[in-house]
Amino acid sequence: MATIKDVAKAAGVSVATVSRVINQSPKASQASIAAVTAAMSALGYRPNANARALVSQSTNTVGVVVGDVSDPFFGVMLKAIDHVVRQQGKQLLIGNGYHDAQTEREAIELLINSRCDSLIIHSKGLSNDELIRYAEEVPGLVVINRYIPEIATRCIALDNYKGAYLATEHLIKHGHQHIGYICSNHDIEDTEQRKAGYLAALAEHGLPHNDSYIEYGTPDEQGGESAMIALLSKQLPITAIATYNDYMAAGSLSVLEDNHIQVPETLSLIGFDDGLIAKYLHPKLTTIRYPIHIMAEQAAMLSLKLAQKDAGEATVRMFVPTLVKRHSVGRATGE
Amino acid sequence: MATIKDVAKAAGVSVATVSRVINQSPKASQASIAAVTAAMSALGYRPNANARALVSQSTNTVGVVVGDVSDPFFGVMLKAIDHVVRQQGKQLLIGNGYHDAQTEREAIELLINSRCDSLIIHSKGLSNDELIRYAEEVPGLVVINRYIPEIATRCIALDNYKGAYLATEHLIKHGHQHIGYICSNHDIEDTEQRKAGYLAALAEHGLPHNDSYIEYGTPDEQGGESAMIALLSKQLPITAIATYNDYMAAGSLSVLEDNHIQVPETLSLIGFDDGLIAKYLHPKLTTIRYPIHIMAEQAAMLSLKLAQKDAGEATVRMFVPTLVKRHSVGRATGE
Repeated sequence: MATIKDVAKAAGVSVATVSRVINQSPKASQASIAAVTAAMSALGYRPNANARALVSQSTNTVGVVVGDVSDPFFGVMLKAIDHVVRQQGKQLLIGNGYHDAQTEREAIELLINSRCDSLIIHSKGLSNDELIRYAEEVPGLVVINRYIPEIATRCIALDNYKGAYLATEHLIKHGHQHIGYICSNHDIEDTEQRKAGYLAALAEHGLPHNDSYIEYGTPDEQGGESAMIALLSKQLPITAIATYNDYMAAGSLSVLEDNHIQVPETLSLIGFDDGLIAKYLHPKLTTIRYPIHIMAEQAAMLSLKLAQKDAGEATVRMFVPTLVKRHSVGRATGE
Repeated sequence: MATIKDVAKAAGVSVATVSRVINQSPKASQASIAAVTAAMSALGYRPNANARALVSQSTNTVGVVVGDVSDPFFGVMLKAIDHVVRQQGKQLLIGNGYHDAQTEREAIELLINSRCDSLIIHSKGLSNDELIRYAEEVPGLVVINRYIPEIATRCIALDNYKGAYLATEHLIKHGHQHIGYICSNHDIEDTEQRKAGYLAALAEHGLPHNDSYIEYGTPDEQGGESAMIALLSKQLPITAIATYNDYMAAGSLSVLEDNHIQVPETLSLIGFDDGLIAKYLHPKLTTIRYPIHIMAEQAAMLSLKLAQKDAGEATVRMFVPTLVKRHSVGRATGE
């Protein structure tokens, strides 16, 4: 592979001149630009992104930390960020944090060391304090799916409380008075916020809250299955259930099908996320839309602006989820 | 942010010495290592990955081009690659090719210019010749999900023909004699190989082939819906259908449900991929498992080895899909 020295020799100029041409320095003359460009082309020389980055102290890469790239939720988020980033001629460097503090920290450190001047971080493991320190170090750092008051203008977050409130209210409006909740057992703010939204909707509609109506599990299909089995085994007068997310709803549905309990005729069920699987479930799942696509676009644009020291339009951005009606919620019967 | 000059000053050594310490040069003395490390720590200086890369002419990043990061198929592939790559202390740089030649080319060029010395490429748009040229330029380049004879030892591919053959044979073994096929209309080798596998299974079991039994659509849910509508409208004596992939099977299922055609009682259906959605469909989809997880791991390991000029274990790697029995295939009736 040709080196910068080969190019300098072929063009009859110094290495420093080749470097100026590559880095589009205003000091490069038209004659040297022509000679160097011709030599690079003839030799098949590729301008080295690392060399350019070293001069400018920044790279053309935008770093993103996601929870788990194999979860379609993060796939949609990455695609939306990629779309914005590509329009600016940049590319993505990604890391998986797996919702674990140490893994998230390592992923962020790697991206910072790679001189990403834009960073979009999905973190559920690190403390607010640590994220604030990273935000101070990297001006182009944006936090997605989390609200930290001290760096509110750097956060793109979802109103989880409102989402769970909407879901529970939708069940109440269908006449349900005994409403269970299938909750995540992960100790992150989303868990508390969604549970609080469920409880608030019950309270504001004068419905009593009963601890035995809530069951916990991992926020996936298996967790939904075990939580639903636990709820069923208690023989409660429940006619509807709100769930932490679509995966837990999917696990619940398979338990209900195995037990010949009709949804929504006997039991109504509502999800959260409106992820890829929601419309493939049977019945198609009524759920809460998490607008991750638009949130990710906003995060990418904000991060690119901040990295260019353009903070003009950075405002608090708390997105509101919406209800998506499909076929898993019906009228309460037998009340 | 502290610079390398600040570190040199604080440590009382030259910039070149700091550089030698950062790059773990054997020429760095123990005393200078101690002084520089202390100074870096005191100043919060981050060794610049770009500077290191410039010295070694390689980076710690592995480049991956996928079709579309929001498709869970590629999410699983990326996660498996990430797992291997992280074990080696490296990280991923990803690009989306969207199965389009020009977009794939741009993604590959960006990764090469970023000095990724390992590249894992999923390309359906570029010609064999162009991929061969890239493989010649980048010793650590591996092609996944595609077989190119000239660079066979650099390819990790799936036997698509065998997969579709298995699917069709599974239907034949259930007594079906009139078997339709819902085919992709994308002009890539996967399309032709799977269709050929379907036709071969019919021929080898003495079943006639009928062009009207095949319908085409985009390889997604909408394409599956329109193809299934077209098949139904022809009033054929079909009792089973093989499909190009699970998404097309999902679209087919929703048309069948709308038309009150029971699966598998009236019509059997088989998918391809065993992607995320297969087990959420109703009935749960019998399908062909695409072992993308293990294939991606193999591709990552091969790519890292090749980049280190260690080609010892590079062999042709053609993976064979397997049948996953669920609930969408039943015995033929009324024959």
